[in-house]
Amino acid sequence: MSDPNTIRAIPAGRRTRKQLRKPNPEVRRRLLDAANRLIREEGFPALRIEEVTERAGLSVGTFYLYFEGKDDLFTSLVVAHTEDLRRQCQQAYHGAGRVLERLARGLDAYLDFIEENEKAFVYFRNSGSRETTAGSLTSWAFAQHAADLRPLVDEGIRTGEIRAGDAALLTQAVLGSMQHLAGFWLENKQQHSRAEIFAFLASLSVRLLSPKRVGQE
Amino acid sequence: MSDPNTIRAIPAGRRTRKQLRKPNPEVRRRLLDAANRLIREEGFPALRIEEVTERAGLSVGTFYLYFEGKDDLFTSLVVAHTEDLRRQCQQAYHGAGRVLERLARGLDAYLDFIEENEKAFVYFRNSGSRETTAGSLTSWAFAQHAADLRPLVDEGIRTGEIRAGDAALLTQAVLGSMQHLAGFWLENKQQHSRAEIFAFLASLSVRLLSPKRVGQE
Repeated sequence: MSDPNTIRAIPAGRRTRKQLRKPNPEVRRRLLDAANRLIREEGFPALRIEEVTERAGLSVGTFYLYFEGKDDLFTSLVVAHTEDLRRQCQQAYHGAGRVLERLARGLDAYLDFIEENEKAFVYFRNSGSRETTAGSLTSWAFAQHAADLRPLVDEGIRTGEIRAGDAALLTQAVLGSMQHLAGFWLENKQQHSRAEIFAFLASLSVRLLSPKRVGQE
Repeated sequence: MSDPNTIRAIPAGRRTRKQLRKPNPEVRRRLLDAANRLIREEGFPALRIEEVTERAGLSVGTFYLYFEGKDDLFTSLVVAHTEDLRRQCQQAYHGAGRVLERLARGLDAYLDFIEENEKAFVYFRNSGSRETTAGSLTSWAFAQHAADLRPLVDEGIRTGEIRAGDAALLTQAVLGSMQHLAGFWLENKQQHSRAEIFAFLASLSVRLLSPKRVGQE
């Protein structure tokens, strides 16, 4: 698996860029944090690199030592978001309790995260995928989440809490519905509360995964 | 609901274009069909407008009477695809049989369609959404499919074939999983056959929608 910090946008042009021999991960993080705070306020399209560096207390020159430009910043932000979201979900998955309880806590963490990062989530989703050094950015991010959830599904199948079945497809079905309904919720907050969406997704995953048969009373 | 033939990309520039007073829908269709056939062969990014007009037996000048450019062609192709797919699903939904049988036939039609239009489907999905005169293109397309499926869900709830519940969320859950797993299948055809994906999606929709409770033997 690629080190997330090394995933880069594939630049359209052939511009060469000054490379740092020893990049400082804290400087990189400061730039990403500043960009994130600005995106929460104004979204990504309006973001200017000068604002990011001003907010981070760094120079524009320093920015270009760490990122190729706005496109590369976009890729790095999606990668950093994916890593942050993964940490929150992993914590839920690795906690105490039965498999379906831990999955529900993962759902909860997911909804917290996308609520907190709403503008970025909607923008990233609407922007489609990009080619990066780790392949398609969307496929990469989804594969990370699937790799985290899959062991929980396998554990549930082993303990009998989850029906025997194609674990890869069950994992995709849970993640796909989570992502779709979370996006639907953000676009329809007037009609559906967070509590409703959470309850719906939690019962959906029970229905999808339960070893109990459906279709008989 | 907007007439699909009038949905246009919102152009980035302010270029003005010669407008036809009486556009000929058959000419427009010929251009879209030619573009579609070319996309099946080579995908969208490589597509050149000269090829489209050559394949359609029309002039480049005629093309620009019907489309603003490649971006507008993209929007029109997504709209035309959505309309074609809708017709196939509607036929299934309006056929004979029980609600869940008709839904399964809709699933089947959906998989047929994306298999036949694989390159376009993958490209449209990876391109993200665009702003059009009908709003976000992706949201528009999804809303069309939801509007078609929703009456079937309502009918099922009325007849007791589908559990009472939030019909809007149930509709989104079915469509969201269909779309996600269909995309996953296209990227993993070596691991999963069409028959496997169809069977998984059909049983998934039964589990999601069945009025029978889950969690008791």
